[in-house]
Amino acid sequence: MAHIAFVGLGVMGWPMARHLTAAGHEVRVFNRTAEKAARFAAAYGATPCTTVAQAAEGVDALITCVGNDDDVRQVTEGADGGFTTLPDGALFIDHSTASAALAKALAARHPRLNCIDAPVSGGQAGAEAGQLAIMCGGDADAIEAARPILDCYGRRVVRIGPSGHGQLAKMSNQIAIAGLVQALAESLHFAKKAGLDTAALLDAIGQGAAQSWQMDNRARTMVEGRFDFGFAVDLMRKDLGLVLEEARSNGASLPVAALVDQFYADVQKMGGNRDDTSSLIRRLS
Amino acid sequence: MAHIAFVGLGVMGWPMARHLTAAGHEVRVFNRTAEKAARFAAAYGATPCTTVAQAAEGVDALITCVGNDDDVRQVTEGADGGFTTLPDGALFIDHSTASAALAKALAARHPRLNCIDAPVSGGQAGAEAGQLAIMCGGDADAIEAARPILDCYGRRVVRIGPSGHGQLAKMSNQIAIAGLVQALAESLHFAKKAGLDTAALLDAIGQGAAQSWQMDNRARTMVEGRFDFGFAVDLMRKDLGLVLEEARSNGASLPVAALVDQFYADVQKMGGNRDDTSSLIRRLS
Amino acid sequence: MAHIAFVGLGVMGWPMARHLTAAGHEVRVFNRTAEKAARFAAAYGATPCTTVAQAAEGVDALITCVGNDDDVRQVTEGADGGFTTLPDGALFIDHSTASAALAKALAARHPRLNCIDAPVSGGQAGAEAGQLAIMCGGDADAIEAARPILDCYGRRVVRIGPSGHGQLAKMSNQIAIAGLVQALAESLHFAKKAGLDTAALLDAIGQGAAQSWQMDNRARTMVEGRFDFGFAVDLMRKDLGLVLEEARSNGASLPVAALVDQFYADVQKMGGNRDDTSSLIRRLS
Amino acid sequence: MAHIAFVGLGVMGWPMARHLTAAGHEVRVFNRTAEKAARFAAAYGATPCTTVAQAAEGVDALITCVGNDDDVRQVTEGADGGFTTLPDGALFIDHSTASAALAKALAARHPRLNCIDAPVSGGQAGAEAGQLAIMCGGDADAIEAARPILDCYGRRVVRIGPSGHGQLAKMSNQIAIAGLVQALAESLHFAKKAGLDTAALLDAIGQGAAQSWQMDNRARTMVEGRFDFGFAVDLMRKDLGLVLEEARSNGASLPVAALVDQFYADVQKMGGNRDDTSSLIRRLS
Repeated sequence: MAHIAFVGLGVMGWPMARHLTAAGHEVRVFNRTAEKAARFAAAYGATPCTTVAQAAEGVDALITCVGNDDDVRQVTEGADGGFTTLPDGALFIDHSTASAALAKALAARHPRLNCIDAPVSGGQAGAEAGQLAIMCGGDADAIEAARPILDCYGRRVVRIGPSGHGQLAKMSNQIAIAGLVQALAESLHFAKKAGLDTAALLDAIGQGAAQSWQMDNRARTMVEGRFDFGFAVDLMRKDLGLVLEEARSNGASLPVAALVDQFYADVQKMGGNRDDTSSLIRRLS
Repeated sequence: MAHIAFVGLGVMGWPMARHLTAAGHEVRVFNRTAEKAARFAAAYGATPCTTVAQAAEGVDALITCVGNDDDVRQVTEGADGGFTTLPDGALFIDHSTASAALAKALAARHPRLNCIDAPVSGGQAGAEAGQLAIMCGGDADAIEAARPILDCYGRRVVRIGPSGHGQLAKMSNQIAIAGLVQALAESLHFAKKAGLDTAALLDAIGQGAAQSWQMDNRARTMVEGRFDFGFAVDLMRKDLGLVLEEARSNGASLPVAALVDQFYADVQKMGGNRDDTSSLIRRLS
Repeated sequence: MAHIAFVGLGVMGWPMARHLTAAGHEVRVFNRTAEKAARFAAAYGATPCTTVAQAAEGVDALITCVGNDDDVRQVTEGADGGFTTLPDGALFIDHSTASAALAKALAARHPRLNCIDAPVSGGQAGAEAGQLAIMCGGDADAIEAARPILDCYGRRVVRIGPSGHGQLAKMSNQIAIAGLVQALAESLHFAKKAGLDTAALLDAIGQGAAQSWQMDNRARTMVEGRFDFGFAVDLMRKDLGLVLEEARSNGASLPVAALVDQFYADVQKMGGNRDDTSSLIRRLS
Repeated sequence: MAHIAFVGLGVMGWPMARHLTAAGHEVRVFNRTAEKAARFAAAYGATPCTTVAQAAEGVDALITCVGNDDDVRQVTEGADGGFTTLPDGALFIDHSTASAALAKALAARHPRLNCIDAPVSGGQAGAEAGQLAIMCGGDADAIEAARPILDCYGRRVVRIGPSGHGQLAKMSNQIAIAGLVQALAESLHFAKKAGLDTAALLDAIGQGAAQSWQMDNRARTMVEGRFDFGFAVDLMRKDLGLVLEEARSNGASLPVAALVDQFYADVQKMGGNRDDTSSLIRRLS
């Protein structure tokens, strides 16, 4: 049983924190909208805090799951941030999808802490089911120490490498998804234009070389034009922004990822900001 | 037990025909290089023929597995082609990947035959294992009649719709693959540039939203730079040529398929004509 | 003064033929819609013909300006085509935009004629003003012999090389235009989204490294959303089809041309088939 | 005659400052590498300064021509930056290509100054000849007051709009250039693959709808494979980075600009960092 401060009770953070209380950990929670922290605390027996500093005081681990680099900096190094009180040797686990540069910088600036960048994959459904994939960057010892916590909501907790490598792995994941979804969208768009029975099509090709998680889980809804679920276009664009920024510095060339990022701009213009990433097909029809 | 003429003993046709002899069908074979037909006949107890017309005389089914539209026309409607002798009501099953227009035209011009366009997916390995996916276009009755034959090498035999729809399904399949492979190539290229441990990366993301048959079966060899197997770049370009020609007439817009087709031109310039389609990653490094 | 058969009185051919009559040449005209030929003949003192064969009998030069490869074949080698009567040593000048393969094949099959593939650039306005650029493929002697005719409507008549090279030059021209127009469209789209005064913008950048004929002549109308003039999207797609087909055989990789070709498919879906090529900007807004 | 502080004596700044001394202005210069400022001062009768603050003290105008946002912030708002001493009502003219957000922020935070964002176009040659195009953002009165200074090296000084609009205009310029150069590269690459005489080609198409400044000034050197001059790939990537960042916030979709940005990454991988932007053709051959 550990003492844990959990910061950021969004669609991902809420169920993750809930798994921690369910596992018997003693959890303090902080959320930008304080009412939400109060509501969580009341429901699951956690302690609501009014600052991150207050939450982090004396805990074994500070866990954050917030929006972007600025948010991460704010809740850690900011005034009233968690790092002002977090004890020496404590774990800092950041589940936010943010830049690798920030992860590296935080670890370098705070050697007294055990910093782990640990972005997740699996979406809201994975968070609720406690079935997330967690890509970890940081010292191997730190990650081993964090594993009992991460296992509360992670189905697959993998150390990728040193600090920053968790974020870089998440970026690799998003690159693979973006082009794959566009390819699937073009395939289904073509099929529709060609007058094909898409159910028969998917029956025929769904276990071959074109198979993908996206085909298994999104092809049907793409054909039906339903996108009110899943991973939002706005978030994908944020992630692709991190990807392309990182590629600018590591020298990778990502023509299709860059192109699909622009196609997501088209989807945003159509009002699809909160639609699932599979809504790429909308701009083709 | 059926009388079957099989035309085209290439890397796909040879094992397919072999499954037919193994199942006890009486098979006549024709190949442009006659020596190959003789060799097949000697090995598997088939009858070699010197013309397609001779092979097709009196059979229940004429099966073709050749290179392109011109080849299909030649072995069917050409002088000494199979349609000169194929009996009324016989099956004509074309496993070639060719245009939907040709499939429709053949069926329309030869109503006395039961024409099925039946391109396959699964590659050489699938052909040898008798585990192909077969996408069929044609009358439902004809496809039902052909099923005992197709089941000899097909794991999944699906009627997509009327004549031409088999070819259109195959095109949809290739569209989905082309962009997916490029996305995977960019993901792994980025990971390499970022210095990631790709084995750990694949372990972490390999069952999530980025998962695909290509990731399961090609990511490792892409990282290793091995491409001397699988589905050749030259064949993929041929197929994408059919795709883009069809899209020009049905009004589909396929930006990523068109772009990746050009990237395959880069691979060809690098000498990768016979490399597996996953060699797209070569032009990134 | 020459005896000339002119075939194809479309928006380009009509004013070209008119320049020939105005220059004193004796002109016979043929058009698929015979009424148009009759109208032209009455207006400009030409002789209308009911077949191309009739028009080409005994002339010094057969000039064609039709739609595509099939049309060119029909009016030359078809039954009642011009080549059935065109005298030995006569000029055959094809102003159609068609494949280089056809140009080469016609020249090779008819060595008794002086064949010139001579696609034009300059649009309807250039045709009417007699100010076309004419890209010629064929023997140098033949092109010199044709020059007095071509000068009637050409401001710039250039021999590019042997048969087919006129068509290949036209393809190079279209490749340069397609990407350029898309770049200009993106620039103006960005300017609009940024709230810029586009007149001031064009004043500032219009003579620098971003300058182009398209910027000089199309930027204003693109901003205004006017596209009911110029070179039609449908024709550009036809030309890009020839380009991409040729690139498939000569090994060029044309990523942006291929991509913009697909963007033109989007414009066609928006109903812009006859709009000017600058209408690419429509799909961005 | 004005008192001017000029900061940043790079390949652009040096000749610009020289035009100011030549016009009789009293010029103080600062450069990160102090030796360069000393050398300039000795050659052209300017006063070298060891800090920007010293240079800006009491002047009529502070002019900066530095690398990026961080550099601009440093030389203005940094410790020893120019804004610590620049008098109320003085002109601040920034010729750097930087973000519009920074230009807006500086103007908003320093209302006591007359801030003008004034990126230039025309390259080193334009700077040396005093023939730059200057895109200005800021108050109309401020820009009018700056005009006598800007006219020393500007052929075309245009007010685009309020603060930030100079930078946005420069971005529009770069968007137009990036796709245009790629289109030209593809055109010439195709021509070469097709075996065309490119001199004849350019003679034929050089004044038509494919014409551009890039075709006039770069086509020949692209064919020859010479790129050791002009506007560097690294700088273009920096600018496209600003473009894509801005587009992310204003909602513009820039598919070809984003794609060509990635193609420039390929050129960088080939070692072409300092080559002219026309070196895009290298990655095609």
